Amino acid sequence: MAYFKNIGKIKFEGRNSDNPLSFKYYNAQQIVAGKTMAEHFKFAVAYWHTFCGLGIDPFGFATQFYPWNQAKDFKTKAFHKADAAFEFLDKIGFDYLCFHDFDLIEEGPTQLESEKRLETISDYILDHLEESHKKVLWGTANCFSNPIYMNGAATNPDFSVVARVGAQLKMALDITIKLGGENYVFWGGREGYMSLLNTDVSKELDHLGILLTMAKDYARKQGFRGTFFIEPKPMEPMKHQYDFDASTTIGFIKKYGLEKDFKLNIEINHATLAQHSFDHELAIATSENMLGSIDANRGDDQNGWDTDQFPNNINELTRTMLIILQAGGFQGGGINFDAKLRRNSTDLEDLFHAHIGGADVFARALLIADSILQNGQYQKHREQRYASFDTKEGRKFRAKELVLEDLYAIATSNPPPKSISGKQEMLENLINRFI
Amino acid sequence: MAYFKNIGKIKFEGRNSDNPLSFKYYNAQQIVAGKTMAEHFKFAVAYWHTFCGLGIDPFGFATQFYPWNQAKDFKTKAFHKADAAFEFLDKIGFDYLCFHDFDLIEEGPTQLESEKRLETISDYILDHLEESHKKVLWGTANCFSNPIYMNGAATNPDFSVVARVGAQLKMALDITIKLGGENYVFWGGREGYMSLLNTDVSKELDHLGILLTMAKDYARKQGFRGTFFIEPKPMEPMKHQYDFDASTTIGFIKKYGLEKDFKLNIEINHATLAQHSFDHELAIATSENMLGSIDANRGDDQNGWDTDQFPNNINELTRTMLIILQAGGFQGGGINFDAKLRRNSTDLEDLFHAHIGGADVFARALLIADSILQNGQYQKHREQRYASFDTKEGRKFRAKELVLEDLYAIATSNPPPKSISGKQEMLENLINRFI
Amino acid sequence: MAYFKNIGKIKFEGRNSDNPLSFKYYNAQQIVAGKTMAEHFKFAVAYWHTFCGLGIDPFGFATQFYPWNQAKDFKTKAFHKADAAFEFLDKIGFDYLCFHDFDLIEEGPTQLESEKRLETISDYILDHLEESHKKVLWGTANCFSNPIYMNGAATNPDFSVVARVGAQLKMALDITIKLGGENYVFWGGREGYMSLLNTDVSKELDHLGILLTMAKDYARKQGFRGTFFIEPKPMEPMKHQYDFDASTTIGFIKKYGLEKDFKLNIEINHATLAQHSFDHELAIATSENMLGSIDANRGDDQNGWDTDQFPNNINELTRTMLIILQAGGFQGGGINFDAKLRRNSTDLEDLFHAHIGGADVFARALLIADSILQNGQYQKHREQRYASFDTKEGRKFRAKELVLEDLYAIATSNPPPKSISGKQEMLENLINRFI
Amino acid sequence: MAYFKNIGKIKFEGRNSDNPLSFKYYNAQQIVAGKTMAEHFKFAVAYWHTFCGLGIDPFGFATQFYPWNQAKDFKTKAFHKADAAFEFLDKIGFDYLCFHDFDLIEEGPTQLESEKRLETISDYILDHLEESHKKVLWGTANCFSNPIYMNGAATNPDFSVVARVGAQLKMALDITIKLGGENYVFWGGREGYMSLLNTDVSKELDHLGILLTMAKDYARKQGFRGTFFIEPKPMEPMKHQYDFDASTTIGFIKKYGLEKDFKLNIEINHATLAQHSFDHELAIATSENMLGSIDANRGDDQNGWDTDQFPNNINELTRTMLIILQAGGFQGGGINFDAKLRRNSTDLEDLFHAHIGGADVFARALLIADSILQNGQYQKHREQRYASFDTKEGRKFRAKELVLEDLYAIATSNPPPKSISGKQEMLENLINRFI
Repeated sequence: MAYFKNIGKIKFEGRNSDNPLSFKYYNAQQIVAGKTMAEHFKFAVAYWHTFCGLGIDPFGFATQFYPWNQAKDFKTKAFHKADAAFEFLDKIGFDYLCFHDFDLIEEGPTQLESEKRLETISDYILDHLEESHKKVLWGTANCFSNPIYMNGAATNPDFSVVARVGAQLKMALDITIKLGGENYVFWGGREGYMSLLNTDVSKELDHLGILLTMAKDYARKQGFRGTFFIEPKPMEPMKHQYDFDASTTIGFIKKYGLEKDFKLNIEINHATLAQHSFDHELAIATSENMLGSIDANRGDDQNGWDTDQFPNNINELTRTMLIILQAGGFQGGGINFDAKLRRNSTDLEDLFHAHIGGADVFARALLIADSILQNGQYQKHREQRYASFDTKEGRKFRAKELVLEDLYAIATSNPPPKSISGKQEMLENLINRFI
Repeated sequence: MAYFKNIGKIKFEGRNSDNPLSFKYYNAQQIVAGKTMAEHFKFAVAYWHTFCGLGIDPFGFATQFYPWNQAKDFKTKAFHKADAAFEFLDKIGFDYLCFHDFDLIEEGPTQLESEKRLETISDYILDHLEESHKKVLWGTANCFSNPIYMNGAATNPDFSVVARVGAQLKMALDITIKLGGENYVFWGGREGYMSLLNTDVSKELDHLGILLTMAKDYARKQGFRGTFFIEPKPMEPMKHQYDFDASTTIGFIKKYGLEKDFKLNIEINHATLAQHSFDHELAIATSENMLGSIDANRGDDQNGWDTDQFPNNINELTRTMLIILQAGGFQGGGINFDAKLRRNSTDLEDLFHAHIGGADVFARALLIADSILQNGQYQKHREQRYASFDTKEGRKFRAKELVLEDLYAIATSNPPPKSISGKQEMLENLINRFI
Repeated sequence: MAYFKNIGKIKFEGRNSDNPLSFKYYNAQQIVAGKTMAEHFKFAVAYWHTFCGLGIDPFGFATQFYPWNQAKDFKTKAFHKADAAFEFLDKIGFDYLCFHDFDLIEEGPTQLESEKRLETISDYILDHLEESHKKVLWGTANCFSNPIYMNGAATNPDFSVVARVGAQLKMALDITIKLGGENYVFWGGREGYMSLLNTDVSKELDHLGILLTMAKDYARKQGFRGTFFIEPKPMEPMKHQYDFDASTTIGFIKKYGLEKDFKLNIEINHATLAQHSFDHELAIATSENMLGSIDANRGDDQNGWDTDQFPNNINELTRTMLIILQAGGFQGGGINFDAKLRRNSTDLEDLFHAHIGGADVFARALLIADSILQNGQYQKHREQRYASFDTKEGRKFRAKELVLEDLYAIATSNPPPKSISGKQEMLENLINRFI
Repeated sequence: MAYFKNIGKIKFEGRNSDNPLSFKYYNAQQIVAGKTMAEHFKFAVAYWHTFCGLGIDPFGFATQFYPWNQAKDFKTKAFHKADAAFEFLDKIGFDYLCFHDFDLIEEGPTQLESEKRLETISDYILDHLEESHKKVLWGTANCFSNPIYMNGAATNPDFSVVARVGAQLKMALDITIKLGGENYVFWGGREGYMSLLNTDVSKELDHLGILLTMAKDYARKQGFRGTFFIEPKPMEPMKHQYDFDASTTIGFIKKYGLEKDFKLNIEINHATLAQHSFDHELAIATSENMLGSIDANRGDDQNGWDTDQFPNNINELTRTMLIILQAGGFQGGGINFDAKLRRNSTDLEDLFHAHIGGADVFARALLIADSILQNGQYQKHREQRYASFDTKEGRKFRAKELVLEDLYAIATSNPPPKSISGKQEMLENLINRFI
């Protein structure tokens, strides 16, 4: 059964096409900077938003009544949803899916029942995967929706909840491995606090570190060779979340000795909620060789929520692709559209508009960034800016061969430093010129 | 010569006094939780705001024309300012000063001239210190006002500026040691970027780490035994500052192996600029045993500037003092009023109102926090909340003696976790009850 | 049947009581500034949060399973909920309720069915009201949860939805009148836009003005003599809401000629979402004689959501009560606790802690504000500050009897103005002294 | 004497030019939508930022030492600055200047001395204007930098300051008229409060209304036929400014009966400080026919300051130009680059890069917006969305010929409204397609 009946495969038709259901820039097989666009991006569809989304918001009931979600029994619904997912993947032409355990099928009343359900649906999805040659970019466990996690998951003050998290992680890892997941993500939606008055931050962070270590050890024992990602977010749903931003999360990863196995999955909207630009978070991650994957979306510049809208800002993504290209791409991951339609976008077709818009703006940003790098002025300016560290004394400084008295001698025996323009406006014009 | 002629020593007169120029709560010698208030707080006056402040803002010229700032030659002005400072300290009854090098006297046209000037004024201040038995809580170098730092200080892309920073740090360390400074602070007002387009984050962070190491090594060689503090701030004046918040700064300190010598100096207004509550920053710092000192002030809840107003929120500081008391106080530091009058508070007397208000609100918060802790319900609630980690299995978990399969077995062989209220509203009422 | 079995009537026990289930400051019959506390505040319980709340958040399912919400059929559930509401009102000792139409009973599949349902439940509630002598502070219509309002209610681009809003308003007004509602509120949760790209702001505002006029005319025809309130909110659920803040809403009310019948209902958390302090919104409203009522709660200082937590900030509410007392109280309304428990506060008892804490902090703020006003220094300072407008020329200026050339003559023939301190720090200390 | 020696006239060279000192899109005489680009935009250079800027920030001294600012005596400096201004205007090829009174020459110690100084420099500038055929888009008075305005200008609690403001406004209006200013702007940088505790909002707003009326009356008497603009800003330098945003300011203008003479001057960075998108402020202004002029710049998405950077966001300005084109352009004004270089952009050349970038991004946005409107799909979608108001009943509703009972009858006798997608994602793709 086809859910998207009037929609065929979305094709690349170039920027002059008048057809809103075509790619204007994203051309999967086009080679840019030595790789196909498909390889650069590894675009993934987010199972939760695209196939489970209902259009609920804190003040409003469901608005999106997708046909695959109408069956009464959970099992049929899960099968329908999987069918819709693979039809969508086929038509949009992306290679990857990302999912939480209970996106695939409704959670059961007990752990054992949940396992059984996941067993069934994952068999079904496995068939789909094999038939379609589609892949799983990453899997994860939803340890935040169930009310038992209201006081935290791995950081819950009640050990019996922590044990429950462990059981769920085991199951989610098993399913991810079974479905060939290339990576595994941890997003700590409940790892944080509502109020410091009842919270022991130190204990809770230790528990999180211990549990992630256990999960990693277990997965490795099962032969999982992919990368683990932590996805930073500063707050929401909790008042504060421990994986606040890239810097904080890298500090955490190192403190608990997880840096060989863990990288970051950086989300645009989470970056801006943390008062950072997205390129800042990418720059921090790449400076530590920690850029694993990204969740593509955008927030609203005028509010502080996680609106998860589809990305569409050309200036922003051009800066993004500049950093990613220069870093040599992702460490294991790709680009997952962790984005949802606004709740009043209720046509089935809107799902296509949204993903097309997102893919096109990334493709365009890649082409622009590549042109900038080929032009070379941008990199040359940066190199010259730091050239003084390639002098004899500059090199010694970087090699830690100087003491403070040496700097004193250098400073007092040389003319005062010159005023050197940062040239920001010129560089910004340079970027805009290539857009 | 007296600058504050009509003002005598500010006395503790208790909460029923109608005299605005008296302390209502701050009673320096009163013992609370085993220490005098003076020992708990080590209140310090900030040389820059209180004696150098002019009332300039980005849209307005100077409004505050203090008599000690009216001399034409820089040297007389510096002496007058020092006289005013010690008169103020004497009358307000605090024990400590904090300063930047060029708060004490105007920077010279060359490093050598600056050193000579600082030599002169520090001799004069040393006499004042000895005579008054006042002390220096910490010194620091102003590596942000001079235009040569417009592209960064230790993180400047030009090595000749970095060398210049080294020379200035040496001088500021020498002066701090000479004046008996108990600690030394680094605030990286220019350590960050204006635009990522021209910035190599990785290089710049390395340079900062190298220079702090050099500075520490030098000071230790000179016999300095105090603590070094880094003061986090997320932005302003730079678009982004590397010492964003407590977590980021602790990560930096550990990365460069400085954790034995460095602690944090946490500022209220910097915490809120980073989208954290002040108690959050304190909780993070104490969870890593890194709470060195604090800069007391407050921002404005409705804007994003560093307004540096004097603290006056009783609810907020009660939570603050709860954390500080439980942590056993500061690691070396105290409470510096890094706060300024609003520019239209132009009476000399206003300096006293402001410091009195700040000291009183801290004193009151200390008394309240002590009552809460003596009452004990607050701590008892927290202990019970985590009690399950004191069971046999909980303990094993914390000791890293379990694997994921163990958690699975525990979770599947026990009844599901109970729903346990976080009791936040009750705890908040409890706090308010003691205010 | 009793839902709150172990809880008796909450009594005033004074500030030294150790009983968390007692009022420490709120003493309903105590006279302050010429009125009882009950008259000052007219505390109301919000039907939606307190009796319909489930603890759902955007990332989590229900956590609060109150016994009155467990019946399977909507009618029994509505009766149970009403029973719980009046038991709660009786025990907490407040006089008022506030409600949306579909808080009382679940919306029906058609308008006519909804009317029938409301007829039934309102008969039942009417009996409760008469028996208990409790009252309705205000009623309102929920024109935001139903998916038909996803593109707006009165401002929907589809006229058939606007007509539907009209029908619902008629019904909600009828019910409010039937239940003796003292006022009627409009909160435009969907009156705004998600994207300007598809929105005609001018048309939508006109439609809103027309519909409010119709609703007012209808209610007056039915004999309703209460006040209509508009409740400003800047955003959420919409990206932008037309009733952004007090100033914007007053401009709207005047533009459509509604100022005789409409006042504002100001909510603390909405004020702060609009980047205003709550006292700012009150000052604007009182300066236009437009302060109708308030919704008491608080947001979180570090995020941008409508967290609707219970109020607990003594400093903030003292400033609030200063303004309200000086304005002579509310124009028709009172204080509705539009506040909810955090979702992990799951004990039935927590509902009492929360309302007790809220009432106590307002009572305390009233007592403090009254002391400040009795002391008189605060008002005296303000009067002196504007005294120059009581001179002959100042009066002429205020009477619009001067032209610009007169001001020129005055300015050039007098000595330059003196520098007069704003004395903000002294005033803040004055306020704190009375807390 | 030439200040920009190595720079010739900036030419339009088209998008493929490699010359950073050329326009890529701004082609003054190119006709778009029936007008030349120069007529659409009326680009103006801001005297204050471009010729008076020093690169000071709250933590740093001057960095920009422009040659025209080096003369010791204020008169020579003023002449040099004027020479530089007209050389810059000539080379950048814009037609307009905007200025504050004391941008032109340093304020004198008395009103009369200031007048004399302004007399002298305005004679000199008048010659420049006549010779160059350049024009003044608007003039204004700086009533915020002088310390006498620290407690407010027109809203100062001291009448003698208010009189002083009157005298300064008279002078600034005289100078603007003398120099042929096409409009006159009021920006109330000090019209607001630092603390509500010492402020009578109601009185202060009345005084502001009275003074603006006087100023308008005076200017009209002198034959000024241009438009008066008020420029909204929510805060900074004051904690709150009365002209918060477009809605608030329109409400104020109407309250004091100034709507025939006053329009708005909307600034991008002020819009975003008020938590609005720039297109929101434009939409509000055009919905009331109040869009007078704009101040072009941009803020930083991650902080809350008035950074006044040069505009460079193509997506944002495309939406801007869509609104402006559809509104038929500005009511009297144009586009003033109220923007400054970052303080570490210290080359003279950087002034050109910045203005070129700004003009190009507007020119490009104009071309894109024109293409979108010519394509027509965008407008068609909006029209269809509101088409139901063109039915018989919809029209009656808009004509206020229905009562609430009519809406009830319509709603209950028709099938329920259909779910109609808002199509936001499709519309956003449509916009991006034309970029």
